This record gives sequence, C-alpha cells and structure tokens, in this order.
Amino acid sequence: MKPKIGILGYGVIGKRLADAVILQDDMELVGVAGRSASFSLRDANLKGYKVFITDQPKPEDASQRLCTIDGTFEDLLINCDVLLDCTPKGIPNQYLDLYNSQKDLITIVQGGEKHNFGGTSFNSFANYNDSFGKKKIRVISCSSTGSTRFVYTLDKYFGLDHAFISLVRRGSDLIKSGSGLFNCLKPVLGQSHHAIDVNTVLPDLNLFSMAVQAPTTFSHVLNIQADLKKPVTAQEVIEVFENMPRVIVGEGMHSTAELMEYYMDMGRPRRDRPEIFLWKESVVVKDKTVYASINVHMESITIPETIDCVRAVCGLEENNWKSVYKTDLALNIQKHKECYKK
Amino acid sequence: MKPKIGILGYGVIGKRLADAVILQDDMELVGVAGRSASFSLRDANLKGYKVFITDQPKPEDASQRLCTIDGTFEDLLINCDVLLDCTPKGIPNQYLDLYNSQKDLITIVQGGEKHNFGGTSFNSFANYNDSFGKKKIRVISCSSTGSTRFVYTLDKYFGLDHAFISLVRRGSDLIKSGSGLFNCLKPVLGQSHHAIDVNTVLPDLNLFSMAVQAPTTFSHVLNIQADLKKPVTAQEVIEVFENMPRVIVGEGMHSTAELMEYYMDMGRPRRDRPEIFLWKESVVVKDKTVYASINVHMESITIPETIDCVRAVCGLEENNWKSVYKTDLALNIQKHKECYKK
Amino acid sequence: MKPKIGILGYGVIGKRLADAVILQDDMELVGVAGRSASFSLRDANLKGYKVFITDQPKPEDASQRLCTIDGTFEDLLINCDVLLDCTPKGIPNQYLDLYNSQKDLITIVQGGEKHNFGGTSFNSFANYNDSFGKKKIRVISCSSTGSTRFVYTLDKYFGLDHAFISLVRRGSDLIKSGSGLFNCLKPVLGQSHHAIDVNTVLPDLNLFSMAVQAPTTFSHVLNIQADLKKPVTAQEVIEVFENMPRVIVGEGMHSTAELMEYYMDMGRPRRDRPEIFLWKESVVVKDKTVYASINVHMESITIPETIDCVRAVCGLEENNWKSVYKTDLALNIQKHKECYKK
Amino acid sequence: MKPKIGILGYGVIGKRLADAVILQDDMELVGVAGRSASFSLRDANLKGYKVFITDQPKPEDASQRLCTIDGTFEDLLINCDVLLDCTPKGIPNQYLDLYNSQKDLITIVQGGEKHNFGGTSFNSFANYNDSFGKKKIRVISCSSTGSTRFVYTLDKYFGLDHAFISLVRRGSDLIKSGSGLFNCLKPVLGQSHHAIDVNTVLPDLNLFSMAVQAPTTFSHVLNIQADLKKPVTAQEVIEVFENMPRVIVGEGMHSTAELMEYYMDMGRPRRDRPEIFLWKESVVVKDKTVYASINVHMESITIPETIDCVRAVCGLEENNWKSVYKTDLALNIQKHKECYKK
Repeated sequence: MKPKIGILGYGVIGKRLADAVILQDDMELVGVAGRSASFSLRDANLKGYKVFITDQPKPEDASQRLCTIDGTFEDLLINCDVLLDCTPKGIPNQYLDLYNSQKDLITIVQGGEKHNFGGTSFNSFANYNDSFGKKKIRVISCSSTGSTRFVYTLDKYFGLDHAFISLVRRGSDLIKSGSGLFNCLKPVLGQSHHAIDVNTVLPDLNLFSMAVQAPTTFSHVLNIQADLKKPVTAQEVIEVFENMPRVIVGEGMHSTAELMEYYMDMGRPRRDRPEIFLWKESVVVKDKTVYASINVHMESITIPETIDCVRAVCGLEENNWKSVYKTDLALNIQKHKECYKK
Repeated sequence: MKPKIGILGYGVIGKRLADAVILQDDMELVGVAGRSASFSLRDANLKGYKVFITDQPKPEDASQRLCTIDGTFEDLLINCDVLLDCTPKGIPNQYLDLYNSQKDLITIVQGGEKHNFGGTSFNSFANYNDSFGKKKIRVISCSSTGSTRFVYTLDKYFGLDHAFISLVRRGSDLIKSGSGLFNCLKPVLGQSHHAIDVNTVLPDLNLFSMAVQAPTTFSHVLNIQADLKKPVTAQEVIEVFENMPRVIVGEGMHSTAELMEYYMDMGRPRRDRPEIFLWKESVVVKDKTVYASINVHMESITIPETIDCVRAVCGLEENNWKSVYKTDLALNIQKHKECYKK
Repeated sequence: MKPKIGILGYGVIGKRLADAVILQDDMELVGVAGRSASFSLRDANLKGYKVFITDQPKPEDASQRLCTIDGTFEDLLINCDVLLDCTPKGIPNQYLDLYNSQKDLITIVQGGEKHNFGGTSFNSFANYNDSFGKKKIRVISCSSTGSTRFVYTLDKYFGLDHAFISLVRRGSDLIKSGSGLFNCLKPVLGQSHHAIDVNTVLPDLNLFSMAVQAPTTFSHVLNIQADLKKPVTAQEVIEVFENMPRVIVGEGMHSTAELMEYYMDMGRPRRDRPEIFLWKESVVVKDKTVYASINVHMESITIPETIDCVRAVCGLEENNWKSVYKTDLALNIQKHKECYKK
Repeated sequence: MKPKIGILGYGVIGKRLADAVILQDDMELVGVAGRSASFSLRDANLKGYKVFITDQPKPEDASQRLCTIDGTFEDLLINCDVLLDCTPKGIPNQYLDLYNSQKDLITIVQGGEKHNFGGTSFNSFANYNDSFGKKKIRVISCSSTGSTRFVYTLDKYFGLDHAFISLVRRGSDLIKSGSGLFNCLKPVLGQSHHAIDVNTVLPDLNLFSMAVQAPTTFSHVLNIQADLKKPVTAQEVIEVFENMPRVIVGEGMHSTAELMEYYMDMGRPRRDRPEIFLWKESVVVKDKTVYASINVHMESITIPETIDCVRAVCGLEENNWKSVYKTDLALNIQKHKECYKK
C-alpha cells in the first residue's frame, strides 16, 4: 500500500512538494490545503490536485471565485498517512493537538521549526536512519541542508576538523513582494542558527556560522573555510564533489543571476535547482585548509530531502543511497549511477 | 518549401525565438549564432540547435570547452532565407554590408533598432500587410508592442481620440547582473520613444508617452489615460480585452512578483508571458476617458509578433488573424477560437 | 506668548519637525515622545530635546540604557498648546479620547490620516486660511503636497482644465530595512488617493491620479499631463515655477540618485530637500497641454507646510505668503524675496 | 610653509578629501579638478574651491553653464606640492608621465591602484613611517583600511595567528545609478584582493579573504574569524576596540540602513562615518578564536588615512598617533585623548 500524502501550506515549499510527490511511484498525493481561496490554489486546481482550506470559506468573498474548494483541512487530514506541513515558522505548533488526535499520523515539518518539534531532524546523507519509526520529523532548513551536503562530503572523504561558514542570505522570497529587505545588509549578530542546525543531523562536527541578509530574491551564497584532518589538493576536493549526488560543480557563471538564467534555459520547472552549486573557480587549498563558495537555491533544495524523509519514516526504503537515487531519477536531477554507490 | 531561419544573438530574445521557431510547422531553424563559446550556447547544443560564432575562436581559450561550435556566422548566413538579428542596439547596422551582399536575404531586427533600418516597422495587429515583400523589417520594441495591442484595441472598438502612456520600465534584464539600475528612479526627460514607436505602425493615432526606469528585472507597468470618441463603461472595456488574443485580463494579483510566480506555477517555459496583462481592478471610466494599468513582460512579448512577421514577409499567410492564431496555438497561448475572428 | 509644541512619534517625520520647530522664533519645542527607549531617542537627548515615552518603561530592559527618559507622553501633553502627531497611519485615532480630554489642545496630524480626522486638510498655498481657529487639522501627504504645489501653480497662472498624475512611489523609507518592496512593481489598482487628497485642499480642480510602488528608498517621480485653459509655451511654464517658493527647476541631473548626491554635497541636514524638483528638460508643451516630470522627497517635503500650519492655527500670521517666507528663511530654503509677493 | 594640495577627480572620494583638507591647519587646498563642467563642480564653486578641468572645454556645450572653470588640470598641477589623485581605477597610470615631469611632486593615489604604482602602500596605524620621503604612495582601499584597523588591533593586543575575512560588499556607489549590481549576488571566485592588500601594510600577518558583492549602496559588512595566539574573553576584545581611534563599538542597530539613518541624525556631513563600526552583539569568543561582524562605510573611511598620509610624506608629523589625533580632531571624529596614547 502506498502511503497517502497530504500537504498543508501551498506556498514556496508546499507547491514544489506537491509536484514532487506526484512524480514518485511509491507514494500518493491526497490533496493540498491552503488558508483560503487564492490564485495559487487555482493553479493547484488546474494541475488536478484536490484543494482544501483551513479557514471558513466566506460565501460573499470575491476571492471565492478564484478557485474550487474540495473541503476543509480536517477532511484532508483524516485521509492522510503522512502530512507535509509547509506552513510558516511557528504555525505547525498551533496544529499539534490536531495532529496528536490522529494517532497514526506522521507529520514532517520544514526547517523553520525547531529541532524539538519532534526531537528528530533529517538529512538524506547525514542521518537517514534516525527517522525510522518516528512520527514527528523536521527536515532541516535550506541553508542547513546545503551546508550539510558540503561539510558531510568533506568529512566523509578527508575528515573535517572545523568549518566556518559565512552565509549571505536572500532577503525575501520572490513572491513576498511587499516585505523584502531593501538596500541594506542585515547581519545576524553572533552565531547564526545554521551551524547549530547542521549539528542536529551531524552532531560530531565542529562548526561555526555567521550570516548576513542581503536584498536579493535569488538564493544564498556561502563562503566556507574548512580545516581538514589531512592535506589535500584543490583537484581532489573538486573530484569528490563531482561525484556527489545533488551537487553541481560548474564554471563560467559569475553571479546568481547568470545561474538562474541558466536553469531557466534548461527548462527546469520554476527554474529550480535542488542541487547545491559549487563554483569550481572558487576552490582554493592551503595545506589542510579548503576555501570555497557554494550557492544554495533556497526554494527547491529541501524538496528531494523531504521526499527521502517520507521514504525513511514510512519504511519504504532502508538504504539512503537507494532512496536518494530513486528521488533524483524521479525529479530528473540524477547524476551517473556510480555516484550513488557509496 | 519552408523558409530557413537563422538567429544571430543568443541572449534574452534570441534564445526565445529559437525555441519558438522550432514549434512552428511552416518554418525551419538552421542554427543560432553568438559571439563566442558560452554557457548559453552550451544550452543551445543540448537542445540540438546548430551553433555558430561571430568572433574568431581562440583555441587556447578556456571558454572553448563550454560548448561545441559548428561554424562561423557566415557559414550560417549562406544557408538562411531569413535572419532574425537579435543583437543589441546598434549592432545590426554594423552587419548591413554583409546582409546586403546576400541579395535575397530577409532580415528582421528587434525594437532596439530605429524605424529607418529598413523603413518598415511591424506589429501583427496594426499593420501586418505593410511587410509583404520587404527585405528589412523591424518588429517594434517590447513596450511599444504592448502599448500597440492596447491602443489598437481601444481604437478599433471605440475610436481613440488621444492616449497618454506613462511607463515604469524595468531597469535591467535579469541576466545583466552587473549593470542594473539601483535604488533610484531614472526618468526619460521629455517625450519617450514609445509613442513615436507606436506611430510607426499606427500612424494616425494621437499619442504621448513618458517613462521612468525603476530598479526591477520584472516587466514594465503602464498607466494609461485614453480619451475615446464616445462614452463607454468599464465593463465594455474589459470585455473587448477579454476577447482579444495576446491579452490576459486578470484579478487578484497585486504585484509583478505575484504575476511572475503565477507564470512559474503554470509551467510556462522560462516563466514567460507573451500576453499583456490588464489588471481588471485598475479599469476606471469617466465618461469618455478610460484609465487602466497593464503589465508587459519585456523578455517574451515580441516573440509571437516576430513569428508572425516571418510569415508576413515570406508570404506564408496573407491574413494576419490566421497567422496570430497559428502562432498562438504553436506557443500554447491561444484563447478560444472566436477571439481570432475579426 | 509663543505656542508650546510637543511632538509624538520620533521617526522619519517627527525628528525632522523637531529640528524645524527649533529653528523658528515664534514657537517653542516642549519635547518629543516615542514608544520606548531607542537609539533614535538618544539622538534627541544629544540635541537637548526632552524625551518622553508612551509605553511603560521596563526597568529590566537592556534598551533602557540607550537613552534618558524625561517622563511619559501624558507628562508632555499637559504642557503643550499644539501636538504634532507624527505616528504611523491609524495611530492618531487611538489617541483621540486623550486629545479631546485636553480642551484647548490643537492637534496636527500628517497625511497618513484621513481628511475626516478633523474635517480640515491643510496646504500652505492652497487653503492656508481654512485652518484658522480649528483644533484638529491634517497636513496632506508628501505626494499630495508635491502635487498640490504643481497643480496650484499651473491653475493660478494659466487656469487648469484637467490633470492626470501618474506617480512612481518609493517602496520603503530608508530606515525600514526589513520591510521594503523588493524587485517588483506594485500598482495601486484604479484611482490612487492622491487626486482625492489634493481635492481636500483644492476642491475645484479636475484631477485623476494613478500610482505604482517601486523598489527605491529615494523619493517619488510624478509624470503629469496637465490640460490648461489656454495655450502656453514651455518657457512660460518654466518661468512661473522658477518664481515659486519650494520649487526647484533644475537640469543636468539624470536620476534620483544624482539628486540625492547633490543635496548631500550641499550639506543639507540629512540630505533633505523640502522643495519639489522640476526637471527642466522634461517640460513639453503641445498647444494647451503640458507634460512634465517632478520629483518629491517624501521624507522632508511636508516639514515647511507643517510649520506654516502651526502658524495658521495659532493665529501667529494671517498672510500665507508671509508665513511661507518666514518658514523658508528659518529652514534656509528661501528663494529671492520677490517670489513671495503674490 | 604649508604644503599645497591639489585634488584630481571630484567624485565620491575627491569631494570628501577637499572638504577634509580645508579643515586641517597644516595644509592648503589649491583647487580641485574634474573632467568637465558638471553639477558636482558647481557645488565646488559654491564652496569656494578653485575648479580645473582635464578635458578641453567646448564653448558650445550646454553643460558649460553648469559651473565656473578656473583653468586646466595642468594649471592646477604646477601650483601643487601634493596631488591627491582620486580618479577611477587605472586612470592614475595614464597621468604618470605628467606626474614624473614635475620632479618634486608627491602623488597619493587611492586603493583602486595597485601596490606597484609607487611600491609603497599606506595605513595610519600599520606602517605610517614607511612613507617618509616617498614620492608615490597608495592609501589602501576602503575594505582593506577597515580590515587593517581590525586585524592590527587584535594583533597588537593579543597576537594574531590567522584571520579569515568574509566580506559582503556594496554593489554600487549611490551616485552611479545606472550601473549597479541588481537582484543577485556576485562572488569573487577564489581569494579576494583584500587579504593581499592588507599584507602590503602588515606583511607578517597570516590572512585569507573572500568576498561577495550584494545589491546595496550602503557600506560593507565583514564577518571575521580570527585565531589569536592566546585565549581571550569577549569583554577583553570589546574593550580594546572601545579604546581604539576610528572604531565605534555600538549596539541596538540591526542593519546598515539603521546605521545610515543614525549618522544622518547625528548631522555628519553627507551622513559619513569614517570609523569602522563593530557590532557589540556580534562578538563571540571560543577559547582563542574570535568571531565578529564589522561595518565599513566605503565612501568616507579612507579620508582620515589620506590626510595622515599627506602628513607622513610631507614630514609634517613624525609620530603616527599624533597625526591620527590631529586629523580626528579636525574631522570631529575624535575619541577621548587617552585612546591616542599608545
């Protein structure tokens, strides 16, 4: 029996997850839920997804004509084995009683929530098995997922002594047009949450992170200093990343705008890029220390990890590399098969 | 015999035209030409387009490995019946001698060029027939194409006495990351070129336009005051636009960012929107005067017009509404069939 | 006896008004009030202004050390003849009972409030006398003040038949770094409030306005089509504006960024420009129709009008041109004396 | 005899240096030179500076009326002992023959030039004495000056083993409205020039720097990991910076926009801040490693260093701390006197 998936929140993450679930052959989408009728949910209608809403519909509301409603969120919930809660930071906690009232329900939240939402955080490479049999799991945030792929790889192949991650974050999602950061830089003062977040899935690593918000809607740039346990060459570093799934090693593209254009040209849905991008030209090695710049597309990067998480918690696949391969193939982001034999 | 089409310039317009030509059944793409090897042209390789370059390749150049080159621009040109020159403003004039040397070549340029490039400007609705038998034609610019669709429609149905168009233009294309307008507004002082440009295809209309450049990469907004020859209602205005091809009348979307997100959701290639968008809520009528706001996606709006232009100059179709329908169907932007019976 | 002035709200407008009141010889600043201790109010401390707060101070709050507090807002209020309420939109209404409880108090609010706050709106040129003897007055908003100066002048000298104002508005104040409009354009759909607002001080004029918000912190640009009652020349239009107070006619500056830099160079406090700026090169006349672009610095433009308003309501000066001259002299923005003899 | 100072280039740096030279009692401003008549140079006229131009004036040019010209650049040069060349990157080299032709002329360039312009780079704290008797000196760039103040202080008080500096740079100066970075991030791939630049004045330090350009006009943010030679506390780190000239340790301001507003409020000319700003809340210490965020106002930070540089090369003051104090007092940015006794 395929697990039945419901999605709450049809924003940046929710709509991408709906499109991703549909592409998997071992899970089934029951429907998506938003707050109220909207042009976003009309798009869900057009794609054939069942549409549910959390707020009471108001018959007199002009927005009602925007889309067709199939029922309330509760109607959706009772038909789900797994709920992917993609609502903004803090909202999942408000639904806790409802989730607990449905004893066998598995709830997966995104990285806006804290680790203690269910006590289990998830990354496909770092700790896939930790989620087996759990009911409440958090997929770590976009920057943390990107950071984890990077430091996990260095640690696996060369041993990681310490990493300092300096992030430049986007100031707003594209659609939130009225509330972006504008013409200024906003540093997180002191340690940012990213290193702490990575440590929830890779607890033994020695990390520190700082972050600055910048006025762009186009993905994060991470400058990293990684002190390894042994000397390496830049070529060795580049090669291990060329052979890692969900990592692109590229050259010749000088800004995040050029990267975005490139992914639009390639015809990726919504110009998404669930892989981290490592600028080949940025890799500098001084003895045991590696410096590198990577780029993380915040809107799409946690999508494949969330699909893997469904597989892990539902017991659909025991081996994380097999799940990663299955997901990548379905999302059409796979690398050659050898990259998944670790 | 299908006309053979070559494209010079593989930037914002060129790559969209290549993808559009491929979708037509009455013309054939010979290849695309850029200045030199680039990651954009690698994308052309991947799509199976033949790739030509204008500059001498330098064997020692690292960028050479970025894509595969099939020959020089001259190699492309001798195999073309029609050249779509999509190079930046002023460049087409530098190629004039080359174009003239190939006696039967038809050259179509974009709106960066002036009307006197060949003395004929083109819009599918306004003056399709004017291009019959011409060798050098200019498709008017993005804002002018958008403005033309709007004022043409008002004039056709209600008679237009005068229109004042106040444009807010995007400050940079998305990909030109290093040279955008930033944190300021830059007015064109005095009359902008737009009204003059529209008059090259609709010479009898009485128009004035002003423009301000703003720091966004996301399409233009046009605020228009149109004085008609007779009183109308807002509902009548909305209805004629609902029945015009290449015009979307929409509501519930409050910014150009929401519009962009919507077109990404719909899966349009490169989140393009070759239709102008008329905000339904913006239409206000005072007796004979109409006020309205429309949105023009500068990157894609001239693509269908350019395809129609090929058909007009090559004598593939005598009736403009039939060409418009054929193009819209191929690009998957068609409205119901009745809209094309005028 | 000089009227005693208190200021509530020490943000963009409040702090500029405090600095302006201090420069007048016929009024006295009692103090300024903000919500709670802040680095902005520390600046008020440094300037020697008494500082009051509306919220209860929390002794344990780290922010307390940021500035010195002289009392509560109520302490300030009982010592004031005139309160300049510069709090954000909607807040002044929450204080209405408090204001009414102090029978002789005069309250002046800014353009975020509606005309019906007290039923009287104010502009120095348009309707100075209307405020004589009133207790609750609203100075119209920044864009409306700028528009009023422009259409008032045209109407006075040439007779105005109709004006269409198309505004491009800044998306955020400079300091509100976390909530600006970003990489998009946001049109007001339908008629914007500006024409309506100008009609509260110039009720007989025939006006329509549309507005688009753009991502800049640097002032508004207004494109205007004005139909006059008689034919004029561009030179005549330019001359009447060259002789109007609070209007600068300039040339050679191509963007709002260049304008801002210029005012920083001139040493204006906070690089402010309380005058509207008319781009000389933008003035085009076709028979009886004038087209022009003006620039309005939203942060400072209502400051002189508010000072004049104090004079009008307190009966300090009966003639508006004398008040305008007095204010301009004190703020060091005066033109030659002849400009004030109308 | 006071040295006679000429300034070439009246842009972002040149106009600030002119205003700073005027405030010193031991040097004299001869005049400023720009390319041609402009509204910037009219501001120089108004301030009473003599104005020279490098290009031939064209009598028919409308821009001539913008300002009054006192002569050519050559006229200025023959009357100068010291030329402050503030032209854009690469231009100073084009004037080398002219400079060499005036045997005793001292030329000081800004950080856009390379160290080998004259083989001597300058920072007031790091290597004041190295410039004694030199004819061609370079003041290091804005980010490098800011970085130098920070690492110099840590090294002086605690010994510095290694520092990694990750910069987020502004994408454009405020006035360059047509050519800013827009809605994207642009990393310098590999090591940025900053660490190398700091090593020209502090050759013994072990440094690495990476940089990302971001779309803001408002100063740079630097995230730094500094490994010291001994354990320290955050309090100790904060205290040494509180006692360093040209460093502000502040709290309660959460973005570069709030910082800018604060300096406008304080009435600093052009809202400048020649001090680096250390966010107190950002300082985190782990044993011997310090993490901190600092902010550098790129437009004004090298001004005091350039004034010190004039004093060093002209032999006006042998002790760098005395020069720093003298400059800071004149520019009204001095800290208490004890900070200058090292």
